[in-house]
Amino acid sequence: MRPVSAKSRPATPARDPERSKERILAAALAEFSHHGFAGARVDRIAHRARINKRMLYCYFGDKHALYREIMRRRFALRAAQIERSPYADLEGAATFWWRFGSADPVWMRLMGWEALDARARGTVCRAERSRAYARAVAQFRRFIERGDLNKQLDPRHVLLLNMALTGFPIAFPQLTRLVTGIGPGSRRFQSQWNDFLRVVMRQFKPARSRRARRAAQTRSSSK
Amino acid sequence: MRPVSAKSRPATPARDPERSKERILAAALAEFSHHGFAGARVDRIAHRARINKRMLYCYFGDKHALYREIMRRRFALRAAQIERSPYADLEGAATFWWRFGSADPVWMRLMGWEALDARARGTVCRAERSRAYARAVAQFRRFIERGDLNKQLDPRHVLLLNMALTGFPIAFPQLTRLVTGIGPGSRRFQSQWNDFLRVVMRQFKPARSRRARRAAQTRSSSK
Repeated sequence: MRPVSAKSRPATPARDPERSKERILAAALAEFSHHGFAGARVDRIAHRARINKRMLYCYFGDKHALYREIMRRRFALRAAQIERSPYADLEGAATFWWRFGSADPVWMRLMGWEALDARARGTVCRAERSRAYARAVAQFRRFIERGDLNKQLDPRHVLLLNMALTGFPIAFPQLTRLVTGIGPGSRRFQSQWNDFLRVVMRQFKPARSRRARRAAQTRSSSK
Repeated sequence: MRPVSAKSRPATPARDPERSKERILAAALAEFSHHGFAGARVDRIAHRARINKRMLYCYFGDKHALYREIMRRRFALRAAQIERSPYADLEGAATFWWRFGSADPVWMRLMGWEALDARARGTVCRAERSRAYARAVAQFRRFIERGDLNKQLDPRHVLLLNMALTGFPIAFPQLTRLVTGIGPGSRRFQSQWNDFLRVVMRQFKPARSRRARRAAQTRSSSK
């Protein structure tokens, strides 16, 4: 981003435009995550960012343009994390996404508002998001081709399963609490769900690959 | 419900209080599902139910009391369905809840609003809901005790897994569309996800029980 020259707008109180923009983005993320697009108020964002509304509009355009920018940045962050993700199999993918997602409940809230809020619809940044998911699907396809997953399964459905198992408890904290007695933000639940995902994802390995692994373990332990 | 005597309120236009109440409940369900608790407007509910606001308040109290009544009825309906549910194993449970949930997206929207909307919080009808979930957990515990599920698994987590796999695609239609190219409301997705759930849930049967089943199949086919 090119810094906006402060000289060209002598009437504004902002001395450091880049820092002002960062404050606006942080305030807007909090506001959209808390209230959704329809419920968000530009007044509150400006107040929290300690900037006047006119400057905010000048930097980011209207509320929808600001929302798009927040979402675009979040998608870029997620896509970069998908690219760098260190997992080698479904078990690794699930525990990676669980650790990652449970540390960032803001993401699931933005997704939740997008699902419910008719005015946030039209799915912002559709092309970029489709591409990022297509790359994730390709990873799951490799697990299937390698024989780590049942060949009957569609890799797109396996990605959706992974999203469901790592996203649902965070997206619905009240249901997690009603079923398990503890909230998804607690260390205890996070560790329990991590262990649960490990066991669950191991079940997906086809029986032959599990038997081969057990046989290999027996051979190595009898040496 | 005892019908409210129309004679005691001669100024109201409602001639059939029970039918008026049903219209209010239907309109309120649509409004809360569409806009959440915070965004719902009693004016719109009254307008849609063709009743004046004063009568609505007289029947149901304020907006929060009406919301509680809507939620209470939905929970009672779900609890009754859990009781009557015809499934004998995890595969049956998942496909039952998928069919049921995908025919009723309103439910996931209410759950979504409850998760996001700070003003809907305090989890309405907590005691009844906890009891209904505890009964569902008991069913999953029986599957585990019977040897149909890995003994390492906590039945509460298995219930949450079942809720995640049958709820997530409906709760996040935009993500389902981005990943699979089709929406969760389409017949095609519903049938594909049903088949996927079958394969997935079968994987959870411990290897011994699957081997025993395969052996039984071989025996019966060689007869």
